[in-house]
Amino acid sequence: MAVPAPPETIRWEGGLPGRVLLIEQTLLPEREERLDVRDVPGMVDAIRRLAVRGAPAIGVAAAFGVVLGVQELVGAPAATVIERLRASVEALGRARPTAVNLFWALDRMRARGEREAAAGADGERIVRALFEEGRAIADEDARTCRRLGEHGAALLRDGARVLTHCNAGALATAGIGTALAPIYVAAEQGRRVSVYADETRPLLQGARLTAWELQRAGIDVTLICDGMAARVLAEGRVDLVLVGSDRIARNGDVCNKIGTYGVALLAHAHGVPFYAVAPLSTFDPTLPDGSRIPIEERAPEEVTAGLGRRTAPLGVKVYNPAFDVTPARYVTGIVTEVGLIEAPDTERVEAAFRRAGLPLPPVR
Amino acid sequence: MAVPAPPETIRWEGGLPGRVLLIEQTLLPEREERLDVRDVPGMVDAIRRLAVRGAPAIGVAAAFGVVLGVQELVGAPAATVIERLRASVEALGRARPTAVNLFWALDRMRARGEREAAAGADGERIVRALFEEGRAIADEDARTCRRLGEHGAALLRDGARVLTHCNAGALATAGIGTALAPIYVAAEQGRRVSVYADETRPLLQGARLTAWELQRAGIDVTLICDGMAARVLAEGRVDLVLVGSDRIARNGDVCNKIGTYGVALLAHAHGVPFYAVAPLSTFDPTLPDGSRIPIEERAPEEVTAGLGRRTAPLGVKVYNPAFDVTPARYVTGIVTEVGLIEAPDTERVEAAFRRAGLPLPPVR
Repeated sequence: MAVPAPPETIRWEGGLPGRVLLIEQTLLPEREERLDVRDVPGMVDAIRRLAVRGAPAIGVAAAFGVVLGVQELVGAPAATVIERLRASVEALGRARPTAVNLFWALDRMRARGEREAAAGADGERIVRALFEEGRAIADEDARTCRRLGEHGAALLRDGARVLTHCNAGALATAGIGTALAPIYVAAEQGRRVSVYADETRPLLQGARLTAWELQRAGIDVTLICDGMAARVLAEGRVDLVLVGSDRIARNGDVCNKIGTYGVALLAHAHGVPFYAVAPLSTFDPTLPDGSRIPIEERAPEEVTAGLGRRTAPLGVKVYNPAFDVTPARYVTGIVTEVGLIEAPDTERVEAAFRRAGLPLPPVR
Repeated sequence: MAVPAPPETIRWEGGLPGRVLLIEQTLLPEREERLDVRDVPGMVDAIRRLAVRGAPAIGVAAAFGVVLGVQELVGAPAATVIERLRASVEALGRARPTAVNLFWALDRMRARGEREAAAGADGERIVRALFEEGRAIADEDARTCRRLGEHGAALLRDGARVLTHCNAGALATAGIGTALAPIYVAAEQGRRVSVYADETRPLLQGARLTAWELQRAGIDVTLICDGMAARVLAEGRVDLVLVGSDRIARNGDVCNKIGTYGVALLAHAHGVPFYAVAPLSTFDPTLPDGSRIPIEERAPEEVTAGLGRRTAPLGVKVYNPAFDVTPARYVTGIVTEVGLIEAPDTERVEAAFRRAGLPLPPVR
């Protein structure tokens, strides 16, 4: 059972200067169109509008956004490039507050630029270094997805039935996804895997994106409304839950799309294992637990009129948090590129960082 | 704090022959229009299309539907009326499978007609008796709602914050609702009550109907997506959950709109009490538990294109059960017209039936 290549969510087009081509995800599943992004405001807008979304893809988009910001300055002095670098990082950092990969990628771009400048590089050299760094972030993301898939596929026996929430697939990364990566890899290895996809209100990433990319890849997918997950679990239709994440605290608390925490509680109540699948760049080891992760609240119209028609009375109050936090005690394990962190806690998360050779910054 | 009269969901207009005026609920919240129903096929269609919905309102609609079926037969022989009565009962009984009030009301109409016939009544007398019975069912429903509200209001302190799912309000009954009745009564009594309303996918009864009728009545209501309930509970924003029911088994298992079971589990996990509010006509004492309640599965289009726009890829598989069953162990209590059944089980449900002077049929 060969799995077709997943959609190419984000791509740098051309050399320097170049542009970024994104799948315009707000048009899916009706139309598959590319958005052509050429400057920082364009990238901020694409991230804010969710034309590109998913924590790892946002990180890659932000890194490429930084390159867009400096690429016209090849002939400029180093100080000018660094100034533009910092302004671009700041603008892109304000696009969305929750996904830590955004800040991780921007920090990495800024550090690279500043390191080059400190070593005496001229403007051109800094711009080229940033381009290299952006492409490296994208390439690493694709390789990381593959490793997540390989580690996670070990959880999927032949015939495994997965429940997922939101979209943590190829459309959320520069590779084969996070939560969906194990499914793609297991399918490549010849195992049958079927998926229940929560539609994921308000923006329906499950219906619009997960169902679309799994169907396109020939994976057996069944769409349900979010409120049906409890019944699907009670009926014994699910062997395990796989979700992505936007930020994971040092103790293993998992921040992800609103609704994930409920799914975790329901899985727990039915004895069904619940796994997050995320690269180490999604971890925020400066936060001791999930309580201080900033939760983006989005516009009420996403709830009252997000589907082409007003579905609630005018003027009704709405509460629209975009994310929630699943306490680590409900997380069976976190699949990372360096392997599974079982029953995550601070000690085990720190051990995974050490195994990966990553620095452990102090807790804020 | 005076509460305006709730919307008049269903009304018999005129004498005999007459017609039924229903609020066309598929048009809410955009337009408040009346549907004029004059015959049995029209009523079957209204019930099936959810122009009228909510277990008690479906019962009243079905009873009035029976009257529509026989009202032209005032001059006909008794046998002809009884034949039409039975055919109407059968047709209306096929409209929707889950809500037991439908069958309860139809049984009551058939029994009344057959009793009159057995006592030697002529066609006209039977038709008039059925008209009387239909109006009695509607009037009793309104009185029952009021009593549910009075018993349930005792659960609501000043400032109480309620979470509800779907619509079990005035729009679901011929009175002030079931789950929302305690809120209306508490507000009448001068207590402030605020409500979180789950939007309730796929058909958005919470967004379209509950938000509409509470806003119209001046009750503080905040709309959330179904997947947000877990976070709202975790944030300590809810003091208790109130929901309606479509059928309650003899042991207290509560069948209600899909998503209710998940809400019950989440409330349980957060130590928040979960109450069903339902008349005894919603109980099905012939079923020992909820496992044999037939669960209606509805069309996939409700999930993939129910909101005026296609939101999922063409041809995707969908699972769309319209109801779920909450086991009695997650139900803190059931508010009935004869009082609260705390920690419901078979013995306590039977005691409530005896208190109400209702017969307890044998278990199927």
